[in-house]
Amino acid sequence: MTEPVMRNSLDPALRERAARVIPGGMWGHQKATQMPEGYPQFFARGEGPRVWDVDGNEYVDFMCSWGPIILGHRNPTVERAVDAQRAVGDCLDGPSEHLVDLAELMVRTIPHADWAMFQKNGSDATTSCVTMARAATGRRKVLVARGSYHGAVPWCSPSLAGVTAEDRAHVLHYDYNDVDSLAAAVRGAGDDLAAVLVTAFRHDIARDLEMPTRHFAQTMRALCDDAGAALILDDVRAGFRLHLGGSWETLGVRPDLAAWSKAIANGYALAAVTGGDRFREAAQKVFVTGSFWCSAVSMVAAKATIAELHAIDAPAYLERVGNRLRDGLAAQSRAHGVAIRQSGPAQMPLVLFEDDPEFTKGALFCRQALARGTYLHHRHNMFLSTAHSDADIDRALAATDAAFAAVAAAGG
Amino acid sequence: MTEPVMRNSLDPALRERAARVIPGGMWGHQKATQMPEGYPQFFARGEGPRVWDVDGNEYVDFMCSWGPIILGHRNPTVERAVDAQRAVGDCLDGPSEHLVDLAELMVRTIPHADWAMFQKNGSDATTSCVTMARAATGRRKVLVARGSYHGAVPWCSPSLAGVTAEDRAHVLHYDYNDVDSLAAAVRGAGDDLAAVLVTAFRHDIARDLEMPTRHFAQTMRALCDDAGAALILDDVRAGFRLHLGGSWETLGVRPDLAAWSKAIANGYALAAVTGGDRFREAAQKVFVTGSFWCSAVSMVAAKATIAELHAIDAPAYLERVGNRLRDGLAAQSRAHGVAIRQSGPAQMPLVLFEDDPEFTKGALFCRQALARGTYLHHRHNMFLSTAHSDADIDRALAATDAAFAAVAAAGG
Repeated sequence: MTEPVMRNSLDPALRERAARVIPGGMWGHQKATQMPEGYPQFFARGEGPRVWDVDGNEYVDFMCSWGPIILGHRNPTVERAVDAQRAVGDCLDGPSEHLVDLAELMVRTIPHADWAMFQKNGSDATTSCVTMARAATGRRKVLVARGSYHGAVPWCSPSLAGVTAEDRAHVLHYDYNDVDSLAAAVRGAGDDLAAVLVTAFRHDIARDLEMPTRHFAQTMRALCDDAGAALILDDVRAGFRLHLGGSWETLGVRPDLAAWSKAIANGYALAAVTGGDRFREAAQKVFVTGSFWCSAVSMVAAKATIAELHAIDAPAYLERVGNRLRDGLAAQSRAHGVAIRQSGPAQMPLVLFEDDPEFTKGALFCRQALARGTYLHHRHNMFLSTAHSDADIDRALAATDAAFAAVAAAGG
Repeated sequence: MTEPVMRNSLDPALRERAARVIPGGMWGHQKATQMPEGYPQFFARGEGPRVWDVDGNEYVDFMCSWGPIILGHRNPTVERAVDAQRAVGDCLDGPSEHLVDLAELMVRTIPHADWAMFQKNGSDATTSCVTMARAATGRRKVLVARGSYHGAVPWCSPSLAGVTAEDRAHVLHYDYNDVDSLAAAVRGAGDDLAAVLVTAFRHDIARDLEMPTRHFAQTMRALCDDAGAALILDDVRAGFRLHLGGSWETLGVRPDLAAWSKAIANGYALAAVTGGDRFREAAQKVFVTGSFWCSAVSMVAAKATIAELHAIDAPAYLERVGNRLRDGLAAQSRAHGVAIRQSGPAQMPLVLFEDDPEFTKGALFCRQALARGTYLHHRHNMFLSTAHSDADIDRALAATDAAFAAVAAAGG
């Protein structure tokens, strides 16, 4: 099978320049050397469900900028609202009226929320939640699921470089979906338990995604209530894709505090903390701020995004197109005799290959799909947007059919 | 003297709504209850050197959004560059070519910089610097000047609410501009000294600003070199206003790592770390990232901002208009027989009143100026922008002349 030709001259030239002036050429989760070979590092354009790399190659985008894009790139409704706000101002000596509108909208949208505050990074929101829980309870221990990602600051970073033991002195671990380990960790914290922190579902990289069981969520709620500790839902990655009221609404379990970011403003830099009245005073007491946290444009973008998500019932739409992709992949997997495991919610799917400990099949599959205009990830959950039409899914499935054939031909 | 009438109906109504859905009605450094009575909380518009509150009151703005605005609100050159980038994309699956351009521009502009990385908050940048210094040295202790502000995260927040002792276990203190206390702190860190962190000048709130002495800066450099520790310059607040190459270029002292934010992109959310080759490997090793850190619009804004700052020699311009304001205030102070102390660089001035321990004279002065269309701060350094013309300064001085008269009349 001949692989379609991708243009590739500007990306390597940029990488060469980047290597001189950026340590390692790039940092963090968007570092292309962590992707299968041939993936571009640099992007030029986004429109609806599509992105273009700097060499002009066009892709149906199943990473959605790693989550922020939920209505498609450059959603016209959001961009119009932003245009109007930019014409008057963004970063001023204080917030705009849109701060109040947005906080009210969050409180109306999210059942556990009596109030909201805003930041810029997911890490800002998770760190604020932990600090608020400690301020409210006067306790120190925070329980975190082993392997869960909650941000890129010393207390929770996946890397230990530059991290001291004290940064994590009060972080204890439990296993996701394991109520016994959770109960044991709660006991381990004794009378010093400030909070249990949990992601909306288990979305650790490079392993099957796992939805929380109702039993796990309800047990966590009960244990937090018994201990007087805060249940903090880290909805940074999943927020607004599974349920507009918070991802655990589907389980009937409400957190005390929740961290939001990514999809909240369709790509504009914003994060949020929502909480119940029990934590209002603590939220007021902690000192959290940032130079750009009150900027009006991102709040206007969030207002427009959340209104649109309501109007089109985005979680249901995302689930439908996600299932169209999932069903198509399942059929192709059977037809080509290449076994895969699909996991996680349809809105944020993951595809792993059986007998693929080094993700080599997955990397081959993704490279083949990429060369056919479909941008997938081989070991991180992907993201759907409401700009993905049935036709976009079908276009992607044409690419994945050829990609499955390549994996089968390689002995997959 | 009759005070001019300020419109004030929308702001209180918004505050009332905000009190219900935002803890304390507002958070952080832009909380208007920390300003003199009558200051607005909510803003509607900015243009050049002027801002308008939600009630339509117009002010010559001497806070510049607390630092980010250095070319004036909605600078046309920056906004045009942003318009062009917004037409194609912002937050994509990876960075744009502008990341590389901007890193190269920082390296060309800043003598100590062999590389650059980008974030969203000043706290992201200072925290990254500390983490990189620890990763590079394998040591833990970080020296911080007593009372200096380096961000709003637990290891450095000015509030202890929700902060554990361990968050600050490896933070030791020295006194700004006091080489003996610095040397003692270095000795106290023993062989565990990772870094000395220092602000560009002493800009702690509610006290006279203080420029670093050359002796202090050079001694810090020598002590860091002797110990093999990193000298980290926190240029978040002052960066690009005193010297485009970093604020300590004026002293002939170069840091190993520097944190930037605020003015870097004229109001667009961006922060940066710059460093020398000695810290390149450590910078590559630490895991720091954020959902919006690679967004193209803020990088395009930074490129346009820094280019413009070069083109017009912004630090010199800011110094000139800052001195026009300072000289005018000094003359008015003498004429009204109201003694003041002016401190700090002319680009970031502070005005305090003699015999004013509770800042009541300062608050009265600022309220009177505010009612005459001049937005000042009574105990935090202010900021000039290149959009401030001589006429704007003179307009402000007309307001401050009346404000001095009011302070004198009140027995000041």
